Amino acid sequence: MDLEKFYNHIDQNQDLYVQRLREAVAIPSVSGDASYRNDVFRMGDWLIGIFEELGINYKAEDIGTHELDGQTLKLPKILLGSYGNDPNKKTILVYGHYDVQPALKEDGWGTDPWELVEDSQGRLLGRGSSDDKGPIIGWLNTIEAYQKLELEFPVNLKICFEGMEESGSEGIDDLIVREAKGYFKDVDCVTISDNYWLGTTKPCLTYGLRGISYFKLTISGPGRDLHSGVFGGTVHEPMTDLAHLFSKLVKADGHILIPGIYDDVAKLDETESNTYKTIQFKQQELHDAIDSDNSIHDNEIDTLMHRWRYPTLSLHGIEGAFSAPGAKTVIPAKVIGKFSIRTVPNMDPDKVTQLVTEFLDKEFAKLGSKNKMKLECIHDGKPWVANTDHWNYVAAAKAVEKVYHVKPDLTREGGSIPVTLTFQEALGDKNVLLLPMGRGDDGAHSINEKLDRSNYINGIKLFGTYLHEVAHIKTE
Amino acid sequence: MDLEKFYNHIDQNQDLYVQRLREAVAIPSVSGDASYRNDVFRMGDWLIGIFEELGINYKAEDIGTHELDGQTLKLPKILLGSYGNDPNKKTILVYGHYDVQPALKEDGWGTDPWELVEDSQGRLLGRGSSDDKGPIIGWLNTIEAYQKLELEFPVNLKICFEGMEESGSEGIDDLIVREAKGYFKDVDCVTISDNYWLGTTKPCLTYGLRGISYFKLTISGPGRDLHSGVFGGTVHEPMTDLAHLFSKLVKADGHILIPGIYDDVAKLDETESNTYKTIQFKQQELHDAIDSDNSIHDNEIDTLMHRWRYPTLSLHGIEGAFSAPGAKTVIPAKVIGKFSIRTVPNMDPDKVTQLVTEFLDKEFAKLGSKNKMKLECIHDGKPWVANTDHWNYVAAAKAVEKVYHVKPDLTREGGSIPVTLTFQEALGDKNVLLLPMGRGDDGAHSINEKLDRSNYINGIKLFGTYLHEVAHIKTE
Repeated sequence: MDLEKFYNHIDQNQDLYVQRLREAVAIPSVSGDASYRNDVFRMGDWLIGIFEELGINYKAEDIGTHELDGQTLKLPKILLGSYGNDPNKKTILVYGHYDVQPALKEDGWGTDPWELVEDSQGRLLGRGSSDDKGPIIGWLNTIEAYQKLELEFPVNLKICFEGMEESGSEGIDDLIVREAKGYFKDVDCVTISDNYWLGTTKPCLTYGLRGISYFKLTISGPGRDLHSGVFGGTVHEPMTDLAHLFSKLVKADGHILIPGIYDDVAKLDETESNTYKTIQFKQQELHDAIDSDNSIHDNEIDTLMHRWRYPTLSLHGIEGAFSAPGAKTVIPAKVIGKFSIRTVPNMDPDKVTQLVTEFLDKEFAKLGSKNKMKLECIHDGKPWVANTDHWNYVAAAKAVEKVYHVKPDLTREGGSIPVTLTFQEALGDKNVLLLPMGRGDDGAHSINEKLDRSNYINGIKLFGTYLHEVAHIKTE
Repeated sequence: MDLEKFYNHIDQNQDLYVQRLREAVAIPSVSGDASYRNDVFRMGDWLIGIFEELGINYKAEDIGTHELDGQTLKLPKILLGSYGNDPNKKTILVYGHYDVQPALKEDGWGTDPWELVEDSQGRLLGRGSSDDKGPIIGWLNTIEAYQKLELEFPVNLKICFEGMEESGSEGIDDLIVREAKGYFKDVDCVTISDNYWLGTTKPCLTYGLRGISYFKLTISGPGRDLHSGVFGGTVHEPMTDLAHLFSKLVKADGHILIPGIYDDVAKLDETESNTYKTIQFKQQELHDAIDSDNSIHDNEIDTLMHRWRYPTLSLHGIEGAFSAPGAKTVIPAKVIGKFSIRTVPNMDPDKVTQLVTEFLDKEFAKLGSKNKMKLECIHDGKPWVANTDHWNYVAAAKAVEKVYHVKPDLTREGGSIPVTLTFQEALGDKNVLLLPMGRGDDGAHSINEKLDRSNYINGIKLFGTYLHEVAHIKTE
């Protein structure tokens, strides 16, 4: 295979690829808000259109309904694709998601989040550009490039694109388990492009992820919102209780205060400790990415360890309290605190929920409030680590060297993609690789999310090269 | 004066009065949100239209600009009206406000907050119906009733309607001081209808109000919102700091934890203590009004004392954190906690701000966070008490008896109308009376605000009777 020719073709077609991403970003496929559900379906249909253009066999799996914002909603379909069916080739499963995080211009976006805008530095700004529409469209662009160049496709490709990843991947675990011996039965390994480089310059392969347990802590009291002048001092205020409970969960330095939460965290051994010494990462990259110097740790290794191998707890916000600009003198009747714990080997989600529940029950009882408290874990996923000596990783490393002329770092990630572990376990311990397309400063889940044009285009080259390498590598 | 004829006329014209209120509610004159500023101006113009119909002399005072939501905005005009100029009559100043609290259907309103809807129990639902559009239109309806019946108007009436009451009454203090010897120079006493009955059945006259000091506590850290998976555990999270600071301010039982805050609270003497014993109020009325039984105190007297004569602190909410339904894994970059303290005699607003500032500076330093904290008192007003032996109160009590056939309770209020004290002080210690129109369960500042039709119509009768009584009462 003439890689130069392949790369030239991709360079020449980059405006087509960007236009395709623009169309996808224009569909606000927010899975976590009932009012956008129709757009999530539209996004799935848009992908099916490309599947049909490229001759990818597919089925759109209906996975039923769920409850959201007090409504019963149809879940977005999981798109299963199959491209090629040659028993002499390896079968690679690629996974991604077509739903996105919420975004409002008022949150502070410099541009309309649902319009892909390229700035003077070649950054493609828009919600979902990097997480995860760029990568999933990247795989489809790769297939198209092989077709246009009339090159034999090197592997059998299985595709699994879901529309609920940003909201707990509802329904997908059951489907993976069900199809493990069906649609997915010949899969040799799994590749997921749904994370980011550690920094902004050097590519990486990622072999570990934290899990997540996301909690809703509801405190309710009065039957309706009250005027603080008329009722302040005479009723138990849910916000006061919630502030006290929030303050018991985590210290300002990030240390979690829930008793027992650190008990199952894997001990740091010398082998693991050594891997941290060679990773290319500078505190300045963290400071650039967060646009601030308010890092907790003063060195790279502590920073990476607390991102990758220790649990953390973040308070995301409060639903039901006064959140608009200005001054409103309200006593909110019902407030829902949102927080999540990022979990690491060998923490167990059920045990985490149990520890949090027991602790908050006890702390709430101490307050002596007449309000009601309810804690719910609304989604959780286990942490995950993979074997980096596997041929899947070796092939990916070769591909990175060909496209970027550098050996990738082997990294873990602080984020959570629960489906990663499900694939590994359900497919009989098949190797799973995370092959990121975007950079560490892409701003997934925050305002002004972007994907650099160079990462998008080189990412398509990387995907094509990876499929070429994985097809030719010795597996024993 | 034939009061029965006057009351019959008002009863016969009640649909006209309700229609007038409907028009006013339809103008969303929210002063605390820049995007509604034009509507506040529209509301002022609507009132001027009625002034002109009724032949009220007026001037619309331009009081300059202010900063809100990062914009420089024109302040709503203060409408000064003058009706009658007979040196043989008393001159009564009535004050009210034509701006309203924010309201969104999504907050949980059963009906569109900007459409006056009457339910089967005769409740007129809509934002501003009770606070304070019903009362200010009530005064205008009263003038119209005297005109239609061709009765001599018993007093000279001065009117002062402002459009910034819900946002700190910006600009009005200067104007009152400036006009004390000008437009307001002949004023004999002041009457304000901008509060509520204690319960739902018995009218009252109100002689005391708490003050308010409203604070914005801003914690900022990262330059933008971050993904909690990628950055959790490596940056100081503003929400964590805010939760800790919020929890230091007030206990679940309402006790304020700021050192020194209770030092200037007037001691309870026996005279005051005795007044609480005769007030008609049942805990059940509190429970009905809050639609819950989560009261802090188990008896009426403690409840009223904590509403009226002790300071309280309420946490209203957080701007900048995740506040929508669903699950978003964000680390908010900048959060603005909103809280306020209701103050009582003899607390001083400047000292309150100083105590809060010193305390939060100290508590924030203890956290050891690299984030930045900023505390601002965005508006404050002193507490107020009036002399209830004054002829103004005696006349009002007679009017209540004529309309409602019951002696009014003498009450204080937990809320704040800072302008009350300004009138009293600027006009040379003229008596100020609070003469409420609505009931304790009207839901000002919360969802489903309402004014009962009977309160609105009887309120107009009360205003007319009060003006009659005050004209004829002996002043020495």
